Amino acid sequence: MIGGGQGAFIGAVHRMAAALDGLYELTAGAFSSNPETSRATGQELGLAPERVYGSYQELIEQEAQRPADERVQVISIVTPNHLHFAPAKLALESGFDVVLDKPMTFSLAEAKELQKVVAATGRRLCLTHTYTGYPMLKEARQLVASGALGIIRKVYVEYPQGWLSSFEEGGNNKQAAWRTDPARSGVAGAMGDIGTHAFNLLEYVSGLHVTQLCADINTVVPGRQLDDDGAVLLRLTGGASGVLVATQVAAGEENNVRLRIYGEKGGLDWQQADANTLLVKWLDRPTEIRRTGAGYLSAAARHNSRIPAGHPEGYLEAFANLYRNFALTLLADQTGQPAPAEAHDYPGIEHGVRGMAFIETVIASGRSAQKWTDFPAVESLERRP
Amino acid sequence: MIGGGQGAFIGAVHRMAAALDGLYELTAGAFSSNPETSRATGQELGLAPERVYGSYQELIEQEAQRPADERVQVISIVTPNHLHFAPAKLALESGFDVVLDKPMTFSLAEAKELQKVVAATGRRLCLTHTYTGYPMLKEARQLVASGALGIIRKVYVEYPQGWLSSFEEGGNNKQAAWRTDPARSGVAGAMGDIGTHAFNLLEYVSGLHVTQLCADINTVVPGRQLDDDGAVLLRLTGGASGVLVATQVAAGEENNVRLRIYGEKGGLDWQQADANTLLVKWLDRPTEIRRTGAGYLSAAARHNSRIPAGHPEGYLEAFANLYRNFALTLLADQTGQPAPAEAHDYPGIEHGVRGMAFIETVIASGRSAQKWTDFPAVESLERRP
Amino acid sequence: MIGGGQGAFIGAVHRMAAALDGLYELTAGAFSSNPETSRATGQELGLAPERVYGSYQELIEQEAQRPADERVQVISIVTPNHLHFAPAKLALESGFDVVLDKPMTFSLAEAKELQKVVAATGRRLCLTHTYTGYPMLKEARQLVASGALGIIRKVYVEYPQGWLSSFEEGGNNKQAAWRTDPARSGVAGAMGDIGTHAFNLLEYVSGLHVTQLCADINTVVPGRQLDDDGAVLLRLTGGASGVLVATQVAAGEENNVRLRIYGEKGGLDWQQADANTLLVKWLDRPTEIRRTGAGYLSAAARHNSRIPAGHPEGYLEAFANLYRNFALTLLADQTGQPAPAEAHDYPGIEHGVRGMAFIETVIASGRSAQKWTDFPAVESLERRP
Amino acid sequence: MIGGGQGAFIGAVHRMAAALDGLYELTAGAFSSNPETSRATGQELGLAPERVYGSYQELIEQEAQRPADERVQVISIVTPNHLHFAPAKLALESGFDVVLDKPMTFSLAEAKELQKVVAATGRRLCLTHTYTGYPMLKEARQLVASGALGIIRKVYVEYPQGWLSSFEEGGNNKQAAWRTDPARSGVAGAMGDIGTHAFNLLEYVSGLHVTQLCADINTVVPGRQLDDDGAVLLRLTGGASGVLVATQVAAGEENNVRLRIYGEKGGLDWQQADANTLLVKWLDRPTEIRRTGAGYLSAAARHNSRIPAGHPEGYLEAFANLYRNFALTLLADQTGQPAPAEAHDYPGIEHGVRGMAFIETVIASGRSAQKWTDFPAVESLERRP
Repeated sequence: MIGGGQGAFIGAVHRMAAALDGLYELTAGAFSSNPETSRATGQELGLAPERVYGSYQELIEQEAQRPADERVQVISIVTPNHLHFAPAKLALESGFDVVLDKPMTFSLAEAKELQKVVAATGRRLCLTHTYTGYPMLKEARQLVASGALGIIRKVYVEYPQGWLSSFEEGGNNKQAAWRTDPARSGVAGAMGDIGTHAFNLLEYVSGLHVTQLCADINTVVPGRQLDDDGAVLLRLTGGASGVLVATQVAAGEENNVRLRIYGEKGGLDWQQADANTLLVKWLDRPTEIRRTGAGYLSAAARHNSRIPAGHPEGYLEAFANLYRNFALTLLADQTGQPAPAEAHDYPGIEHGVRGMAFIETVIASGRSAQKWTDFPAVESLERRP
Repeated sequence: MIGGGQGAFIGAVHRMAAALDGLYELTAGAFSSNPETSRATGQELGLAPERVYGSYQELIEQEAQRPADERVQVISIVTPNHLHFAPAKLALESGFDVVLDKPMTFSLAEAKELQKVVAATGRRLCLTHTYTGYPMLKEARQLVASGALGIIRKVYVEYPQGWLSSFEEGGNNKQAAWRTDPARSGVAGAMGDIGTHAFNLLEYVSGLHVTQLCADINTVVPGRQLDDDGAVLLRLTGGASGVLVATQVAAGEENNVRLRIYGEKGGLDWQQADANTLLVKWLDRPTEIRRTGAGYLSAAARHNSRIPAGHPEGYLEAFANLYRNFALTLLADQTGQPAPAEAHDYPGIEHGVRGMAFIETVIASGRSAQKWTDFPAVESLERRP
Repeated sequence: MIGGGQGAFIGAVHRMAAALDGLYELTAGAFSSNPETSRATGQELGLAPERVYGSYQELIEQEAQRPADERVQVISIVTPNHLHFAPAKLALESGFDVVLDKPMTFSLAEAKELQKVVAATGRRLCLTHTYTGYPMLKEARQLVASGALGIIRKVYVEYPQGWLSSFEEGGNNKQAAWRTDPARSGVAGAMGDIGTHAFNLLEYVSGLHVTQLCADINTVVPGRQLDDDGAVLLRLTGGASGVLVATQVAAGEENNVRLRIYGEKGGLDWQQADANTLLVKWLDRPTEIRRTGAGYLSAAARHNSRIPAGHPEGYLEAFANLYRNFALTLLADQTGQPAPAEAHDYPGIEHGVRGMAFIETVIASGRSAQKWTDFPAVESLERRP
Repeated sequence: MIGGGQGAFIGAVHRMAAALDGLYELTAGAFSSNPETSRATGQELGLAPERVYGSYQELIEQEAQRPADERVQVISIVTPNHLHFAPAKLALESGFDVVLDKPMTFSLAEAKELQKVVAATGRRLCLTHTYTGYPMLKEARQLVASGALGIIRKVYVEYPQGWLSSFEEGGNNKQAAWRTDPARSGVAGAMGDIGTHAFNLLEYVSGLHVTQLCADINTVVPGRQLDDDGAVLLRLTGGASGVLVATQVAAGEENNVRLRIYGEKGGLDWQQADANTLLVKWLDRPTEIRRTGAGYLSAAARHNSRIPAGHPEGYLEAFANLYRNFALTLLADQTGQPAPAEAHDYPGIEHGVRGMAFIETVIASGRSAQKWTDFPAVESLERRP
């Protein structure tokens, strides 16, 4: 693991997600750019001292020199955005598979570059767009793909948060500090942090791609350097249209990501606050409540669930699904034994490229007086091997 | 009553709403442009045959000639949009107070003309923007006005319906037929029918006015003549921004109007599917569930409720609140006895003018390649006497 | 109307419910045992002074002497329980049809006596067990009757309130005063006031009858004279069993009556807080959300609804359904024109007799050290003409 | 780990719960009474072959002979009920701390015996009454203990399932087979399997003890050998009363455990389907929605949560809280460093004894014609060291 030292948030989440199914063991880390912090974190986590490193370079180089069966196999990178590209590139080029936190890179240029590295090295990369790991979003995706809803007409996705309603970065909030800092976060604040999640969710479940967008991007809290709020009109492939909302100044909101999709014959509605429920609506018959763990679900939904219906599975389980499917894919690579399609379903490099394209396009549109801005022609999710 | 003959929908709603509190008695009507239908409706409703008229002109003229204590006092106009202005103008000029269904007129020009008629005649007009009659939206408005949420930053309003997902106007659906017909509905379909409700709700509760908007307006169902879908980015007074969504092709949706408003310190969330609940959210303490009928509510909310908490009040009660407050205002006019402010709170002529300005602006924006379109400077709701 | 003077609660509810559909006109009343209050109420309601009476005897006698087409047709009795039997009996014997608030009488003996009066006079009686008027409970009843759930195994009904958590009857709360007074309320407090509603709902929807019960009856608030809390184990016809809970000391609860029924193949769940939703659960497929106003509902559910799905109907509409169906039945009597079965569906005398049997049995069981107490063999609901 | 071989359910849950926080490592197991199954499971889990044992005796004996720093520290026993006592006793007496699935033993006599073993050996035992691990139930317990609700009057707990609505034990359902078999499950079916959970939850959160109960216990599905349904009236310390419902024939229900508690001033409502929400109700002010992860929660609630509010935590996280708190307690034992009280909060031996007392009492009451049956005077939860 690179990053995730004491005081960080997402590093611990990655560790719990990786541990849940017993498919990963944490054996080495460069947890902080501060060697002291790295060492202390490693000790707390019970790592052998010689495998706690002072920098990501050190970790990658020294692990690469260990015998094949004594070195790490997968490197998780959980640093702020500006420190994604370089360690990911080095890790891939040194023969490691990589789990990378989102947004994938600092810029679209870096993302495209990383895409080339992945192609050139033949290593695998998993991008932790967590929400797509929820079983009921797997069900949703299958439902759309099955054609049961007819041609998709409308997509609405929203990610309202309230935690940046005040000038948190002025105090001791480490999370707020780097996420609102252009030098560490990139060209976008809210749009990069949660807008990309919303965008990814939308494209993943609908199977559609955004072709044009029109954004209203705001910095609401005085003194803030990056956007903390935005709303985006969308045009998508197949004639669909929609709205994406991402805000960090909806005071009192937690993390209730919500996705609604409507086709000719019906629609679907999912929200994180009730993550184990998928509402499926129909023109002429009662709405259905589909539930995690139920026997009637698609194979994809069942594969991404662990316990009987009614025992709620949450965010960590969704996160763990990414790690698990990545592991199953790597195991299939190693053993040559094929696994069912659902075992290979995790967000990869193309998700990251499209996410970075979204960030740059949405910020550009926010500054434009023109209504519609074209979405760049980056590789689609569907062409993913 | 003008309009509301057999087969109509909203006429019966007006009659139930007016009847609920015993403050109105239906005594005369021109229920249809077809005299047979009008007569049959009048008979079914138990009216004296001589007070069932074959046209609105007849009704207004003949009622005006009756002795003051034997004629109707208030005329409800529940015809399609193209038949709002003329009967409303004639009624006002003939000395009657008027209840008028929304949107107020066929065009903004008519709306402004009607505003002059109201001013000139000194009669009163109530526009049935039903949703503002819900007690928990009265509570919401008071909450915003109290400043408890701080300066308002974000407003989200949505009105998703699914009933026009197919080409209903091709069959025998009378409601679909006139609402999608430019000759009867006006320049807008969904935006006029339900977009105006959303717009009105937003401005009424937030106390803010839209200053600019950017609309994506769509006609989704093939063959349809007017818009059946739209999404609008909003800029409002006081620096707030927001999103308005109105669609009639969200297959499987009923009428779940929803309003969310966020300020510096907290937010509120209301939806028609749970109309007796107002969620009030705070930055640093638990969300509150405020409920119709509770003792802790504002005077405005309590005034617009009839039964103890937990016995749900619905759409007809909200509608009846408009009729009741209009009646209380007319009674105060008659008796000269002042009533509390909440008794005078019903949507009036300014709501109608702004609603028509919204319709024309949003359609113009939908056709524009420019991002922002200015909202015309029509009189604000606040200046209402 | 008898009772319902200023300060009363349920009288106003009856008046609104009767007014909603335009099928009743209030023309006479004895609103209070205090002639002054009666007169003032009558004036407020706009009645002719000569038809506002000082006592129920006066009202019934004088109205009976008026010409047939100038007298009241239906008498609504909305007095406290101890004043139900005498006016109801006199009204029926004087040729009037009667709407009576619940519980039907002061004692089971009175109830049986009233049953004889109804039979002897051939007049009709409607008992306002409001909750059975909700459209989704009509749907629920049809669903059970259809056999779709299989043989019914479990029934759970609960009516939690919190308004009597303190010694309200010690203050100025008129409602609390009579409802906790054995001289006016009868042998039971909570069990009579809300337990009977729960019991009626259970038997009405399930189509089953309680055969034995085991009650834990409590008076929780010090100083109170009647029960304010209870829980009852039930055995029913067909081998089903269940639980009934009724309490007035569940601090913070409003009036969230809830009914759940489970059969071999599925179950149903309804609660007043979400009255327009019926959840239908199945062993092997997704739960359905059935909604008031939807086209797929049974004729019974559709008959008891007025507006399109998504526009909530509430308690007053449910109450109005009782009045409406009673009116449709009386109109069918008068005209000789048959109406569909659903138009005759309102709670009648047998509901009242069984309700009084419940009250006396549940109180007796509460005092018994024996587990099961037999339910008396009073006439069943099914045998109702 | 003892038990939890391939095809078992709860073993995998224990493993995930133990892994989540990185405080346990699975190093040895006797996963099945069938040595082949045990071996295969061990291999699948990546254990060293020499530490996969053919029987629990073998595991305990051989691990006990290993050097202190190379043997297991904690033994998790996840076998059916009839195989709890013997391995737990042996493990404790051999110097191991024990995690034991519920219900604790096969009989109350065994439970009391085990309690003596715990006392004699000084080892620790954690009983996996999962639901008490939910953060919002920690909050609930603190709220009751704080006195904010006043004296507790009413407690309602329910655990409705539907999965045994048919004769599942007649087919290949291993879970159904042993849970309905008196030889493996004990004297009770549903009451042992889920009734004990409900009972434990109730006593844990309310801080009250059941003193008398009156049970209706049913075997609904033909051919079944043990109860699959029951409802229980409760009397508790402090004058409170309540109802416990546990059923496995509520067709269509999942695992929606629900607890409601009402005191003089307010109440609380929690259900597993919305596990991260605790509703707190008050007599005279709005209901509060308290949420997992929020800053305003009690230390106990915050201690048992891992991620920011709005990212749902589920059943596995609740289960992991038991394992985590048990580990923190053992670490405090080892290091001698005190930990805060909330770190020691896990269900222990007294919970198990009371649970077994519940099972035997509730079944006895079900067979009794007498209303109330006394609850035996076993040690209370409060006296736990």
